[in-house]
Amino acid sequence: MPAQPVLIAGQWRAARATAIFRAENPALGQTLPDEYPISSLADCDAALAAAAEAAKILRTASPEKIAAFLQKFAERTEKRATELVEMAHQESALPKAPRLGEVELPRTTGQLRQAAAAALEGSWSQPTIDTKLNIRSRLGPIGPVAVFGPNNFPFAFNSAAGGDFAAAIAAGNPVIAKANTSHPGTTRLLAEEAFAAVGETGLPSATVQLIYRTSHADGEKFVADPRLGAIAYTGSRTAGLKLKAAADAAGKPFYAELSSVNPVVILPGALAERGAKLAEEFSGSCLLGAGQFCTNPGLVILLAGNSTEEFITAVKQRFEAATPGPLLSSGVAKTLGESVRILQDTGAKLVTGGTPMPAPGYRFANTLLRVAGADFLRTPEKFQTEAFGNASLLVIACDAKEAGAVIEHLEGNLTGCIYSDTKGADDGVYSDLEPRLRERVGRLLNDKMPTGVAVSPAMNHGGPYPATGHPGFTAVGIPASIRRFAALQCYDNVRANRLPAALGDQNPTGKMWRLIDGRWTLANVGA
Amino acid sequence: MPAQPVLIAGQWRAARATAIFRAENPALGQTLPDEYPISSLADCDAALAAAAEAAKILRTASPEKIAAFLQKFAERTEKRATELVEMAHQESALPKAPRLGEVELPRTTGQLRQAAAAALEGSWSQPTIDTKLNIRSRLGPIGPVAVFGPNNFPFAFNSAAGGDFAAAIAAGNPVIAKANTSHPGTTRLLAEEAFAAVGETGLPSATVQLIYRTSHADGEKFVADPRLGAIAYTGSRTAGLKLKAAADAAGKPFYAELSSVNPVVILPGALAERGAKLAEEFSGSCLLGAGQFCTNPGLVILLAGNSTEEFITAVKQRFEAATPGPLLSSGVAKTLGESVRILQDTGAKLVTGGTPMPAPGYRFANTLLRVAGADFLRTPEKFQTEAFGNASLLVIACDAKEAGAVIEHLEGNLTGCIYSDTKGADDGVYSDLEPRLRERVGRLLNDKMPTGVAVSPAMNHGGPYPATGHPGFTAVGIPASIRRFAALQCYDNVRANRLPAALGDQNPTGKMWRLIDGRWTLANVGA
Repeated sequence: MPAQPVLIAGQWRAARATAIFRAENPALGQTLPDEYPISSLADCDAALAAAAEAAKILRTASPEKIAAFLQKFAERTEKRATELVEMAHQESALPKAPRLGEVELPRTTGQLRQAAAAALEGSWSQPTIDTKLNIRSRLGPIGPVAVFGPNNFPFAFNSAAGGDFAAAIAAGNPVIAKANTSHPGTTRLLAEEAFAAVGETGLPSATVQLIYRTSHADGEKFVADPRLGAIAYTGSRTAGLKLKAAADAAGKPFYAELSSVNPVVILPGALAERGAKLAEEFSGSCLLGAGQFCTNPGLVILLAGNSTEEFITAVKQRFEAATPGPLLSSGVAKTLGESVRILQDTGAKLVTGGTPMPAPGYRFANTLLRVAGADFLRTPEKFQTEAFGNASLLVIACDAKEAGAVIEHLEGNLTGCIYSDTKGADDGVYSDLEPRLRERVGRLLNDKMPTGVAVSPAMNHGGPYPATGHPGFTAVGIPASIRRFAALQCYDNVRANRLPAALGDQNPTGKMWRLIDGRWTLANVGA
Repeated sequence: MPAQPVLIAGQWRAARATAIFRAENPALGQTLPDEYPISSLADCDAALAAAAEAAKILRTASPEKIAAFLQKFAERTEKRATELVEMAHQESALPKAPRLGEVELPRTTGQLRQAAAAALEGSWSQPTIDTKLNIRSRLGPIGPVAVFGPNNFPFAFNSAAGGDFAAAIAAGNPVIAKANTSHPGTTRLLAEEAFAAVGETGLPSATVQLIYRTSHADGEKFVADPRLGAIAYTGSRTAGLKLKAAADAAGKPFYAELSSVNPVVILPGALAERGAKLAEEFSGSCLLGAGQFCTNPGLVILLAGNSTEEFITAVKQRFEAATPGPLLSSGVAKTLGESVRILQDTGAKLVTGGTPMPAPGYRFANTLLRVAGADFLRTPEKFQTEAFGNASLLVIACDAKEAGAVIEHLEGNLTGCIYSDTKGADDGVYSDLEPRLRERVGRLLNDKMPTGVAVSPAMNHGGPYPATGHPGFTAVGIPASIRRFAALQCYDNVRANRLPAALGDQNPTGKMWRLIDGRWTLANVGA
């Protein structure tokens, strides 16, 4: 059986491969039969050349056409749901229901439809008109976007269908999807539907392309290619930083989501008021999907005391009572074990867990560790090692001052939560700690675990480095996520008949918000 | 006489210097008497520590206070105008009138006042509210900003008073100004007024700090420091790319304005219609201020023919008739000579100029070069060597197709212009060339030279790499330029009394545009 084909320049064709790889069924710990190619630079080059040509056509494609593609793709994805869910389950061990079929797939098609609506409406591009000087600008397509998807959302962050894909297309760019190597089959099925939708809606055939894997060296050349407009990467910090360095050197915006331990601060009043409920809430969030979320609460800051010890005991019981979920791959299991080992070697004590579970498949005991605040402060960087999976580190500060110091030593994170009591007993400490946490996280929560990431215009799934590469952008939430894949295009004294429709005197849809002479409006110029 | 003091942590104090340097009077070619310190890393470290503390306070400073500072600073600058203009003239050889006193200084105080108005009004931060999910977000301060100003605008782009400074402060960040070494005295005077305004308005004393110079190695450590939020750099590509690499590796947004040749395409119909006028327009733009603008028209694309030869003859006459303006420094004169030499060595022919002018001071003959399109296409990169100053290269394409190929080989630029006739004879060629130019420039102009950069909300003084480091941002134009120095801050389920005023149910000023449930509005939530 030949290796699966890549999708390049409108053709499903044999890769110019240097080798092959196979995915695994992590629930069984077995390699799956399909062979996938590791592409050579020749494949990358062919995809880049085709994408550059497609980008030229897409720049002038109508919003209606782009929206039609996204909608059609969503429909086709739904029609193939059974097969997609089966494949994703096989490759990821994530439950078919509710997770894959009832939550993640609808989220994915929902994102595609939201992106379609945003493309059609056009407000994402923030048209800005200075009528007095006749200068007009808007955000336009940045050029071909390479999307590297993560292992933990085979649909919603898939490089050929997820949030980055939808945002890049909505902005008018072709996408070169680099499959996550743990779910190449799922990515292939999605790319098949995307490509069929491309054909049905008359977009350039290289609007969507797919390669599965390259060598690290070829990957670095790929992201530094002048024909690319931008790169979206979600994955491990080590691999991400190497690609980022290559893209940076070539002046290419590299939107990276690298790692996050998502600190949760639980203040004493909250524990006194509702400690048992918080233990349940935290355990549920931390163990959901075996903890394999970018926003998993991996670091909890507590103040020393009886309530905290009771909380820890309650969490320990819940961690021990819950059956550990399957991990996404042998790699995740290996890294989780290594990370827990690093935390222990650095001085954290095991409360429970800490060991792999027996076969079949890859699972790790639900793991809780603890360390005193003073110890954390001696090597804060090492204690922030992300243990991706069903594990969390509790940091027990001796008082609020020490908790503040711990927060001040945190790296940039996607999220940060503070739980406080409802009567005001924690308010003083909250006011003291909040500013320190605020500047270190993209999303600040009150009384809520960070795991859920709503697709809302007000969402920020981003944060200061090293959580991401630029703190001004979000990977989730439409229309803001679309703006990552845009260049600012100004028209100075350009004749009226040569302006893009979005910048003409007339509002092309009547629904596009434009900033005209300092006022946001749906009206025409002069109205 | 001791070296001039640096401004660090609220004190004008002696630098911890490794050496000193002196500026020069470029009109006379004489070194000026004042000595300025080359700071050691100890100075950088002290400034960074003070900035980090100031940033904490500034994060919660009221918009009124920030606006008051910017306004007070503008007033103080105006009161000291005579001394400032004298000093800037001495250090730059730019004319006192109209340039420095009547154009650039008013532009600078105008920018400060526009930034004040933007800070007060708050719309720049794009508050976004999802009432159903109670998720709210806005752009907030990114942290201390290091500003490296260029040599060519001693006021309007000054690191202690110019557009980057005003934008960084308006976003709520302290600034560490790194003076341009060609005008340290001007920068010192401006920093004195800024610091006095800081005191008068009660901002943290380290809101504005000033160092003059560091070694290259220390500069790279400085921009990579974790305490910085972002860096704004305008200057030479070589130095800029080294700093960018250091900042990139540390995950710090580095807003660079590096170089641009600003292609101007003049189509045959326009030449036939108004060739003499275009020769005047181009010569005026290219020789203005001895061509020392980021947006100087350094590359003109023409189609071969009699009209083009007539145009070249007319420009040659104007170049020869105009007295070359003084250059900003010995360094500019040296680099201009070298760049013209590179263009000639690559195959461009001198039409006129090409040699330095005799003393006193630094001047270079108004220089025009030409090359055939086919020759340009053999080594397009070398022919795009920026000859910063009163020089321009004409590229004569044999036909429109070759002109299109020339455009396709252009690097990213700040601007791109197309001149066409008014009757429609050029329209076909325009339609063919425009898309190729559009994707390579930040600002596209019709029938207008690129030199003027209006401070308009619709302006884009930015563009694809290597013109800048990220094509999504502009360095000129308020409020957009402010957003460079901001991080996206989301509040998820945060209690109402803990939200920043901009995200509360009530519009804090009644003038702040907010995106509430998909509609831009000045109204309160629920209204």
